[in-house]
Amino acid sequence: MADIYDKVIELARRRGFVWPTSECYGSVAGFIDYGPLGAMLKRKIENVWRNFYVAREGYFEIECPTIGGEAIYIASGHVKGFADKMIQCPHCNEYHRADHVCDAHNIKNAETKSLDELTEILKDLPCPACGETFNGAQVHYFNLMFHTTIGPGSQRTGYLRPETAQGIFTDFTRLLRFYREKLPFGAVQIGKSYRNEISPRQGMIRLREFTQAEAEIFVNPNDKKHPNFGRYADRAVPLWGIEQQEKCTDPVSMTMKDAVSSGIIANEYVAYYVALTHDFLISCGAEPKKVRFRQHLPDERAHYATDCWDAEVFSERFGWIETVGIADRTNYDLNAHAKNSKDSFTVFMPYDEPKKVMERKIIPNMGALGPKYRNRAKAVSDALAESTPGENGAEIVLDGEKITIPPELYEIREQETEIQGEYIMPHVIEPSYGIDRILYCVLEHSYDEEDVDGEVRKVLHIPAKIAPVQVAVLPLMSRDGLDSIASKIMEKVQDEGIIAQYDDSGAIGRRYRRQDEVGTPFAVTVDYDTKEDNTVTLRERDSMKQIRCDAQKIPGILRDLIRGKVLFDELQ
Amino acid sequence: MADIYDKVIELARRRGFVWPTSECYGSVAGFIDYGPLGAMLKRKIENVWRNFYVAREGYFEIECPTIGGEAIYIASGHVKGFADKMIQCPHCNEYHRADHVCDAHNIKNAETKSLDELTEILKDLPCPACGETFNGAQVHYFNLMFHTTIGPGSQRTGYLRPETAQGIFTDFTRLLRFYREKLPFGAVQIGKSYRNEISPRQGMIRLREFTQAEAEIFVNPNDKKHPNFGRYADRAVPLWGIEQQEKCTDPVSMTMKDAVSSGIIANEYVAYYVALTHDFLISCGAEPKKVRFRQHLPDERAHYATDCWDAEVFSERFGWIETVGIADRTNYDLNAHAKNSKDSFTVFMPYDEPKKVMERKIIPNMGALGPKYRNRAKAVSDALAESTPGENGAEIVLDGEKITIPPELYEIREQETEIQGEYIMPHVIEPSYGIDRILYCVLEHSYDEEDVDGEVRKVLHIPAKIAPVQVAVLPLMSRDGLDSIASKIMEKVQDEGIIAQYDDSGAIGRRYRRQDEVGTPFAVTVDYDTKEDNTVTLRERDSMKQIRCDAQKIPGILRDLIRGKVLFDELQ
Repeated sequence: MADIYDKVIELARRRGFVWPTSECYGSVAGFIDYGPLGAMLKRKIENVWRNFYVAREGYFEIECPTIGGEAIYIASGHVKGFADKMIQCPHCNEYHRADHVCDAHNIKNAETKSLDELTEILKDLPCPACGETFNGAQVHYFNLMFHTTIGPGSQRTGYLRPETAQGIFTDFTRLLRFYREKLPFGAVQIGKSYRNEISPRQGMIRLREFTQAEAEIFVNPNDKKHPNFGRYADRAVPLWGIEQQEKCTDPVSMTMKDAVSSGIIANEYVAYYVALTHDFLISCGAEPKKVRFRQHLPDERAHYATDCWDAEVFSERFGWIETVGIADRTNYDLNAHAKNSKDSFTVFMPYDEPKKVMERKIIPNMGALGPKYRNRAKAVSDALAESTPGENGAEIVLDGEKITIPPELYEIREQETEIQGEYIMPHVIEPSYGIDRILYCVLEHSYDEEDVDGEVRKVLHIPAKIAPVQVAVLPLMSRDGLDSIASKIMEKVQDEGIIAQYDDSGAIGRRYRRQDEVGTPFAVTVDYDTKEDNTVTLRERDSMKQIRCDAQKIPGILRDLIRGKVLFDELQ
Repeated sequence: MADIYDKVIELARRRGFVWPTSECYGSVAGFIDYGPLGAMLKRKIENVWRNFYVAREGYFEIECPTIGGEAIYIASGHVKGFADKMIQCPHCNEYHRADHVCDAHNIKNAETKSLDELTEILKDLPCPACGETFNGAQVHYFNLMFHTTIGPGSQRTGYLRPETAQGIFTDFTRLLRFYREKLPFGAVQIGKSYRNEISPRQGMIRLREFTQAEAEIFVNPNDKKHPNFGRYADRAVPLWGIEQQEKCTDPVSMTMKDAVSSGIIANEYVAYYVALTHDFLISCGAEPKKVRFRQHLPDERAHYATDCWDAEVFSERFGWIETVGIADRTNYDLNAHAKNSKDSFTVFMPYDEPKKVMERKIIPNMGALGPKYRNRAKAVSDALAESTPGENGAEIVLDGEKITIPPELYEIREQETEIQGEYIMPHVIEPSYGIDRILYCVLEHSYDEEDVDGEVRKVLHIPAKIAPVQVAVLPLMSRDGLDSIASKIMEKVQDEGIIAQYDDSGAIGRRYRRQDEVGTPFAVTVDYDTKEDNTVTLRERDSMKQIRCDAQKIPGILRDLIRGKVLFDELQ
């Protein structure tokens, strides 16, 4: 029997949300096309994300190329470490992820095993493609970056970025100047990332080309308090912490204030973005009871990360899916780039008040040095200033020659110096969103089949602000002037920036169903009464309730409904 | 001396519009990063484009992967034909485009010369990099697609798309169903495309990774009248047609109606998008006198295209730059995919009324055929139905044997048949925009240095609707409560969807200059009078005029100003 995944994908294909890519050539696993309604839905989800991160948090968006030079990914560690363990079947030549084969045979912790251990385990297991054993094949690493060459003659290696983040890190110095050299600041990027999966078989969940929305927030390592923590301090979020996972208990609902004060979440910054992510997912239509935040266990967490939480969303087909990762990455990334590039990746942090420190200074006696060392006097004086004199004088090296300068040729003074501040390397807080997975979850959670008068009504309960079509304009008949009234309403609604669809074909009930199925939240119907009193029927998708409204007011009413400023039930 | 390009690029780098990519690793030619203000400007230009094509034309946007399988680009012709002629210097090993070297030595028509001809010409010319001659080197083709491999083991060749268009073509069958099998319809795509340039040296003008906005409009080949041609029929646009180019005269300003009726532009569709493009470029801030439309000459036009026009924009550094191409590509692309794939790429076009045609039908006389041909009777009857009988009977071929069937074994009947319509392959009208080039031209055209009270004011006169920051909110002092009033105004303005920037540092004059330089069209200043009467100063960037406004009304006024519903001078 078709599960909800099959139903959602059937609808998504038929109505133009998601299509197999280049289907006429047999499509390619791990790639999808967004059709007209899917691309619209995706763009709206991205814009909701921008509202949270760009408009409200004030983190500007930047846009870097998807192709990056080798140097970036050597520094970031991807050239060396962004790999899966792979085996090729010696019989059918098919490639498989070693951990996936182990998982299918209930062999635990495959990710942490070595290449040799996995080779040993797999030699007795059957290939999922042909059924023969892997005996004779070696497990080896396969780097997941797509590789290309920039310019002619294989001059320069390039990679398709595995994440958008590195573009923000490499622009750190420019960004710091843009934000006038002050912490904290953040930048975000929404765009394509790539992962050359060995054999992706999960539709929209495991893509080789996908869209990420990432924020990189640069903070003072000594101050991880979010300036607007108050906004989310009292928000309760289902947390599946390390303790609950180890004890195999359910997630606990906890406020962010409590999570930070009890030490479950490492700091306010991480907690703030856990709560913001919860807010974001719910406002995109994820079912609250199907969202949880899972903390990374110590052995799965990257060695440098202080704390890391995944927003997981439940899918009937795939179980709990990781859709967002929120991590405190410390200074790992900036440090890696500082070591590999010519920039320092530091910020000058002035102290609240200058610090006073005692400094020992060596003052050469030039009156005595001059006659003694003549044209070498300046060099001796410079070397002296850097030396550490002992009781019997200071040892310096001049042109490879060791010279001892007697104490009477200099004077040692202790003096107080003011230090204005210091250079520090910021820590990075990173919320990273997988837009395609979120979009799939929105479709699955909003899909419903309802019995209406003995017929099945398929409906997508997508929130109005992200629905691909926001209002359907339906003339009861496409004659007697109803069509021209409807066209005028259409124009006014579009002028308000609302995405509208005109439909005049078929019975009105069928037209409502057609719109329900693609999640259009409102419909305006023009009928013969409209010609008399200039009122129209306004229908709400979810309740199927209908009210009569003044046609003039429709654009304003829709605007308020979509922005959530008024509820449908409050209209009459 | 610095020309306007140097000035614009200096500003663009310093203020966060455009940066060299991964600068800390030395950057890579042909790639750029958009900084915070540049990415915002770019997104707004894209949204203006969407207003024209998605909202007004009703062409839905789709989103296809940037990596495509080999089959697509074999069919499209890119694997074979998307190449430049290249030469490698035998002395310094540098690669050069053969036509660029010729151009630099005033050798005409290099593009049309063969590899051998170019090799012969170049052998005496000096390498632009080292000065030695190219003698001994061969000119050969270099394919400009970035190449990669999908999946492990070099299993599958992939290319980074050289244009977004092919994704729309390969989705044709799905799109046709989405638009309910009716012509005309269109789909658009905005996204990255790639071109592995041999040695790009023109900053933002010649990029290896760039953003395209393309529309593919599928029309009935027998009806190239645009349904809304009236919108642009009377718009006059500077056309540099084939005739003017051949006679070396200036472009002529001509209405679209006249251009079509006189045959200068091939049809209404092409003319409509020429005018729409003119409308779009001007509304993004291109100077009208620096925009012209150049028709492709017969020898540069693709052999299949009926007509092709480039929107060219004048840059002081680069001369006339091609920013948009508008072409009638006939059925070339769909036909290529139909030949290479399993889809037909046709549309069933019903006739207004069914056509009646006389059909000649051959009815075998089975009573006579049966006994004569026995178990071959059925085969004879089938072959007969397909034959063209003459006076002495019908010749058929059966199992390789020629047989003549005498007239008495069949009967010929003339009968009337109704044909409901026919399958046709649509023609494609393609307006294709290079967003990066347009963005650069917007910056160059909007850049100005004005003498204000003896000082130079640098200002970007970017139209309000695409300005990266739309309003600056400036408290005169950041104390005495002025800061909190300003913060509240800031919030209300942002709630209206307007991008605002708060700035409280430095003298007010300096803050205005800072905003002028990044093109912020309006500034709201909160001063001590605000505390008395709740009015603020609203300043317009272009005129530097200031008026007092009720602070409450600021969000509404700004919204109207930005949407162009009211002019600043009309406010008081």
